[in-house]
Amino acid sequence: MANFDLMRQLQLKNDRKIVLLVVDGLGGLPVEPGGPTELEVAQKPVLDRLASEGTLGQMIPIRPGITPGSGPAHLALFGYDPIQYNVGRGVLEATGIGMEVKKGDIAARGNFCTLDSKGMIIDRRAGRIPSDEAIPLVERLSGIRIPDVEVDVQHVREYRFAIVMRGEDLEPELEDTDPQATGVQPHPVRARKKSSQRTADLFERWVAEARARLAEENKANGLTLRGFSTDPGLPQFPEIFGLKAACIAVYPMYRGASRLVGMEIEDFQGDTPEDEFRAASDIWDNYDFFFIHIKKTDSMGEDGNFQGKVGIIETVDHALPSLLKLEPDVLCVTCDHSTPARMKKHSWHPVPTLLWAPATGLPDHQTTFGERACAQGGFGTFPTIDLMPLLMAHADRLEKFGA
Amino acid sequence: MANFDLMRQLQLKNDRKIVLLVVDGLGGLPVEPGGPTELEVAQKPVLDRLASEGTLGQMIPIRPGITPGSGPAHLALFGYDPIQYNVGRGVLEATGIGMEVKKGDIAARGNFCTLDSKGMIIDRRAGRIPSDEAIPLVERLSGIRIPDVEVDVQHVREYRFAIVMRGEDLEPELEDTDPQATGVQPHPVRARKKSSQRTADLFERWVAEARARLAEENKANGLTLRGFSTDPGLPQFPEIFGLKAACIAVYPMYRGASRLVGMEIEDFQGDTPEDEFRAASDIWDNYDFFFIHIKKTDSMGEDGNFQGKVGIIETVDHALPSLLKLEPDVLCVTCDHSTPARMKKHSWHPVPTLLWAPATGLPDHQTTFGERACAQGGFGTFPTIDLMPLLMAHADRLEKFGA
Repeated sequence: MANFDLMRQLQLKNDRKIVLLVVDGLGGLPVEPGGPTELEVAQKPVLDRLASEGTLGQMIPIRPGITPGSGPAHLALFGYDPIQYNVGRGVLEATGIGMEVKKGDIAARGNFCTLDSKGMIIDRRAGRIPSDEAIPLVERLSGIRIPDVEVDVQHVREYRFAIVMRGEDLEPELEDTDPQATGVQPHPVRARKKSSQRTADLFERWVAEARARLAEENKANGLTLRGFSTDPGLPQFPEIFGLKAACIAVYPMYRGASRLVGMEIEDFQGDTPEDEFRAASDIWDNYDFFFIHIKKTDSMGEDGNFQGKVGIIETVDHALPSLLKLEPDVLCVTCDHSTPARMKKHSWHPVPTLLWAPATGLPDHQTTFGERACAQGGFGTFPTIDLMPLLMAHADRLEKFGA
Repeated sequence: MANFDLMRQLQLKNDRKIVLLVVDGLGGLPVEPGGPTELEVAQKPVLDRLASEGTLGQMIPIRPGITPGSGPAHLALFGYDPIQYNVGRGVLEATGIGMEVKKGDIAARGNFCTLDSKGMIIDRRAGRIPSDEAIPLVERLSGIRIPDVEVDVQHVREYRFAIVMRGEDLEPELEDTDPQATGVQPHPVRARKKSSQRTADLFERWVAEARARLAEENKANGLTLRGFSTDPGLPQFPEIFGLKAACIAVYPMYRGASRLVGMEIEDFQGDTPEDEFRAASDIWDNYDFFFIHIKKTDSMGEDGNFQGKVGIIETVDHALPSLLKLEPDVLCVTCDHSTPARMKKHSWHPVPTLLWAPATGLPDHQTTFGERACAQGGFGTFPTIDLMPLLMAHADRLEKFGA
């Protein structure tokens, strides 16, 4: 908190523009002893030039050794201590697709799944049914009425949907119904404390109705809910840092996290780095701060696709000149967490970070952007929540502290 | 505290094994400008190979610039903030030799000393009398009776003993009687606050009795007490981290510290690194976590014996293959604090740290284990209390935080 108070106290306005380019899951691991990581092996002349001209470092997303989920990891990038500000997945998902989640509303993320004749889960993602099959099912569910509460259900992507319940005295302390396994039934909605039992019962009624309406489906004849949560009432990013901030992201969760901290969410065509940088160009004059999120590095990492991840990094590098043409004053290229292809999941490793600010930076002697270069970089190793003050400083947007 | 809560919340069980090899006082200093440290000059092919394959860093034991005692330094290695959890030397010493110290019992460490005819200390360690001379003296002292309290006295090693007083309303806020100097008398037992005056008086009665019973001795005709303390009721390591933990250590204090945090203390034959690694081998299947403590590097450092310390490091290196044969998943070689032979005492310098975890680590570019290599290592510089979460992460024993 002291951090936010300092930012409020010291923030300055000027016309310097900051770009935070988050290449999700960028950090990696060698696949064989002595070998390079995904980032180290990628052909990335532009990033390497920025590394030469800029300053490297490595950041600890949450705490040493802690592997972050995407929500907490992004909050940390925006300067929020994610242990203090714990935002539920349901809220992130729902706000990410533009659903309103007010204080006291209960949001959850839903997955369609496939059940066998005994109600056991055969496929936790209902064969990853495509959006055009899922949308009519979500419409069917949105017809369900539960006494005393309003329920809004909306489609997210493929087999995923979001649900928001609104009413008096609802409480979010509910267990996930997703058992994270096949061969077992979905859990009932269980209350984590006594006072949330009524909310559990209301969701159970909704689930029973939904199961009835899906019973004849072939693939999506069941569903699971997780990440029950309500709006945590976060302090707002534009007010803390004095920055008019835009979010350019394809995936709902990242848009959701940005919306919760008060960024404006940009709609745009396409989903490539080129498309995202073009979107930044279109609104360049209207904002001070641009959060641009590239998802596919993380997806490739989770799939264990080392070469695929290398390819995405190269695509980002190839598109970067169009972003640099906008002449950002401060450009930071980093990630929320590492997703080493070797591990096929998020990891706790410190994340590679490149900060390029030609007018104000102190370049180190590193000449390439990679994990090991970053470990030797001029910023050393520091917590991700310290990034925002560094970006502000490099944009000359912080006053001197004390006389 | 948030740290422990996170560990409790995220801990996972699996069959990965973690070894924390503490080479006490390992860190050192060059004896001449431009020269190597003890660790840098030692012939240690195994440690250097582990350094090449693993990741280096340097840890700050307590806070920057703070020279730790052995107790706090070990608590930090086990993940406990030693400023918050201040365990007295008396408790460490007493529990280390298996004495029971319950909440409210007051433990202290005792030294025999030599007094001249005026009661001035001539030798603070009574000529380092050997154990077989000291044991009968301790037996003589154990016959002392003080009204309203029970007093237990037991021999530790050479000129050292431990004393535990048990009774109603005892308080540990007492000054050491050891003046840490010769040519002066031992201090009386002074209360640090009013309510501990009664406890001071009880110890003073005991000291007077003890002095009377030692008066005819040649060397050990006096004694000093220090580190008055009671059981701090530490949260328990196995519960915090979900690790069944064994302590393999020769010296009482390290066994005491381990016992206080809930580790199981292994008894074994011998006192060389070989012996200690054999002890680990004997119980390998029964535990998840092995704290192995090597003392003699510290003793050599305190004696100012640079070459002797180098030799101990080489002995450890020579014995290491027997430990590696057990195939630990995570092996950390580090120390509680530096004991540079040049300084002949503990120091505040950051300590060299090597973490080897072939399945999960991100190797840096360092190829030798030494203080300067560690300062350039992939982990950077970090507080010792962050080590445990890192070891847990490398053993894949922590769940993701948040969705």
